[in-house]
Amino acid sequence: MANPTSKKSVLLTACLLAMSAPTAMALPAFPDAHASDPVVLGLMQGFPPAPDKVVNFSNYLQFPQLRWAFSHAREILPTANVARGEGPVAPLLRAERKDIDSLTFLPLGSDQPMTWEQSLAANYTDGIVILHRGKLVYERYFGALDAQGQHMAMSVTKSFVGTLGAMLVDEGVLDPQASVSHYVPELKDSGFGNATVRQILDMTTGIRYSENYADPKAEIWEYARSGHILPRPQGYDGATSLYAFLQKVQPEGQHGQAFAYKTVNSDVLAWIVQRATGQSVAELLQTRIWNKLGAEQSAYLILDEVGTGFAGGGFNAGLRDMARFGETMRLNGRFNGQQIIPEAVVADIRKGASQADFAKAGYQTLPNWSYRDMWWVSHNAHGVFAARGIHGQTIYVDPRAEMVIARFASFPVAANAVIDPTSLPAYAAVAKLLMDTP
Amino acid sequence: MANPTSKKSVLLTACLLAMSAPTAMALPAFPDAHASDPVVLGLMQGFPPAPDKVVNFSNYLQFPQLRWAFSHAREILPTANVARGEGPVAPLLRAERKDIDSLTFLPLGSDQPMTWEQSLAANYTDGIVILHRGKLVYERYFGALDAQGQHMAMSVTKSFVGTLGAMLVDEGVLDPQASVSHYVPELKDSGFGNATVRQILDMTTGIRYSENYADPKAEIWEYARSGHILPRPQGYDGATSLYAFLQKVQPEGQHGQAFAYKTVNSDVLAWIVQRATGQSVAELLQTRIWNKLGAEQSAYLILDEVGTGFAGGGFNAGLRDMARFGETMRLNGRFNGQQIIPEAVVADIRKGASQADFAKAGYQTLPNWSYRDMWWVSHNAHGVFAARGIHGQTIYVDPRAEMVIARFASFPVAANAVIDPTSLPAYAAVAKLLMDTP
Repeated sequence: MANPTSKKSVLLTACLLAMSAPTAMALPAFPDAHASDPVVLGLMQGFPPAPDKVVNFSNYLQFPQLRWAFSHAREILPTANVARGEGPVAPLLRAERKDIDSLTFLPLGSDQPMTWEQSLAANYTDGIVILHRGKLVYERYFGALDAQGQHMAMSVTKSFVGTLGAMLVDEGVLDPQASVSHYVPELKDSGFGNATVRQILDMTTGIRYSENYADPKAEIWEYARSGHILPRPQGYDGATSLYAFLQKVQPEGQHGQAFAYKTVNSDVLAWIVQRATGQSVAELLQTRIWNKLGAEQSAYLILDEVGTGFAGGGFNAGLRDMARFGETMRLNGRFNGQQIIPEAVVADIRKGASQADFAKAGYQTLPNWSYRDMWWVSHNAHGVFAARGIHGQTIYVDPRAEMVIARFASFPVAANAVIDPTSLPAYAAVAKLLMDTP
Repeated sequence: MANPTSKKSVLLTACLLAMSAPTAMALPAFPDAHASDPVVLGLMQGFPPAPDKVVNFSNYLQFPQLRWAFSHAREILPTANVARGEGPVAPLLRAERKDIDSLTFLPLGSDQPMTWEQSLAANYTDGIVILHRGKLVYERYFGALDAQGQHMAMSVTKSFVGTLGAMLVDEGVLDPQASVSHYVPELKDSGFGNATVRQILDMTTGIRYSENYADPKAEIWEYARSGHILPRPQGYDGATSLYAFLQKVQPEGQHGQAFAYKTVNSDVLAWIVQRATGQSVAELLQTRIWNKLGAEQSAYLILDEVGTGFAGGGFNAGLRDMARFGETMRLNGRFNGQQIIPEAVVADIRKGASQADFAKAGYQTLPNWSYRDMWWVSHNAHGVFAARGIHGQTIYVDPRAEMVIARFASFPVAANAVIDPTSLPAYAAVAKLLMDTP
């Protein structure tokens, strides 16, 4: 059995790709997708598992343990149910394409062609499905995930919460020009207090908050510890709930000047949404989306120690259900026989936000994109827009190609900038294939 | 809003009943069912809830917090999914009876008649359903539970695990006369090592283990702390997993001489079952029972810190699904168009075990009963048998009356002996009503 700590096989592909990352990034050597497969490693196998095979709260975000944990978050953390409801499952008819695996593409920044199938391993894919015109043309699972499982969606969660926010704006429940403190007085003295709901939705707030996972002093760490997503070190005296942390966030710069991807905005939005509706995010996801989607499975949301859902990254769901939501967005909100998301809301998302504001953030793999209602919008000829989460999670919607891709992954590092080079051109290649030979 | 700590209204009924408990028991004063209703109290309401309304790992087994927590265990503890599967829901046709609420009965040890409806409050009922000939004749929810919710089944869990064990005996996978150490060598030097599988199934092992919740030195406390069901005090140096604790349990007396209700037997059985099948208890519950039941909802099992399911009391499910399982047992294992539990297994449970061995345990509310395959068997004229869990959980099967009752409750104290007096005669009265006027 492979030992991930002694096995020093260099992940050549990832290191190559690191050269095209937006910020200079030296990737350490990691065992490859097969060698780090949690089933191959025997993680959490046996009754009880051997001590060195245990994945628990102390190590679940480390590699390779995260490869098991991303498909088993509820077995480690407190979670709230997002029930599928009582209706029938919305069927996904199958029309499998055999020509996708061998499809080749050029990774960004590389002149070495790669096949689609190779890209799955390069990205440590746990599961991927492709819908074309609503039919399931491709579906694969690896490692700890299967069709019945639920996987951490990471920041794909934000797009769900952003959609809820945009729905409430559309309904007039939220005024996009009102200030955060209008809805959440507790945030009045924080950096968020005088930001508008729109600035929160589009992440153009000016706040002191670093999400640089490579910097141990980045605010993301206290944030994660406040939400009990990460263990607290001995003598920890920081915030002990997500909302206690949000109140400590300081202003930095001006609101509304530039896109700055900061997870805390999503939790501020969730706080606003919950105050405005009297319902928790889990309840809203359940009643407004999951109950209507014809989902196969109930989903769930990770909670902090006072029961607050982690809106910045705590959603977990089955992969085909993620694809159903993507298909809903592709179809302008209409799916499973009903208008789940108002057409105007999807239109607002798809038109995107300021590309100039976005450009200031320096995402080299996402030229000309923008960020609207917590969705990533390409502004390309296909009208692609996507939900994206660290370690490779995505819902990728290509309206022109009538294609939706949902992927769960457990890439060794958090940065999508090193995953995009073998993902975005691969998706474009599949889109072209499906359009050329439908 | 009522303050449960200052409100000292004496629960007269419960105190009266304490006089008929098997062991002398002075019940402290508790707010009544309405005053301790978690919705009335505002527990876990608000974003975030006020500090004095928070239910978390530090207080969730205290009253009144437990009244919220029993319906929200996954929001506090790590849990494994027990998926309902992909099949259709097994419908429960409705034939509501209006004559049950006003039905009167005499509580055990009392000459004051009580109505059925009064008994629900006296028992701090969170939900109760009655099936008659498979039809739903009565259904009520209170407090934090509703039809879509899942509630802690407490030791009703044991009956599920005992049923799995009996199924494996029936299949020849487990030899009931083999020793525990034959399947689990790690238990060789513990008090369980030379017990037989049958003695584990029927809880006639001779081990040093006290489940007296009133005794702070009882082994149940280290057991609960080992499984991370209870917080560990500063400087805790006890076992840190369920199975680490089981290995420490010492022998006391002889195996096979008397029934002695000790939760650890259920976890030993689970360990045996998992070793014999290579599947976890959650997987076995899912594939062998929950997938076949036509359950409305997925269920779940509470886990310790190394992912071991708490087989002694960690199952959580929807109430109507619990009734479906009871109906399966009433129908000798056949439900939802298939033989879910072999007929021979149900027969083995229903015939019970030694009443003489059971009598030694001194259950005054359960005269002439016995305990077989982790089910409580009445040996009465109706052939009643039941799954029972602390704080009032039950699946009560009355074959003669063609009746199944499933109840979830959050009685202030753990002892069923103080709940039985207003429950068992109430159930018998409903059974008579349904037989007399079907």
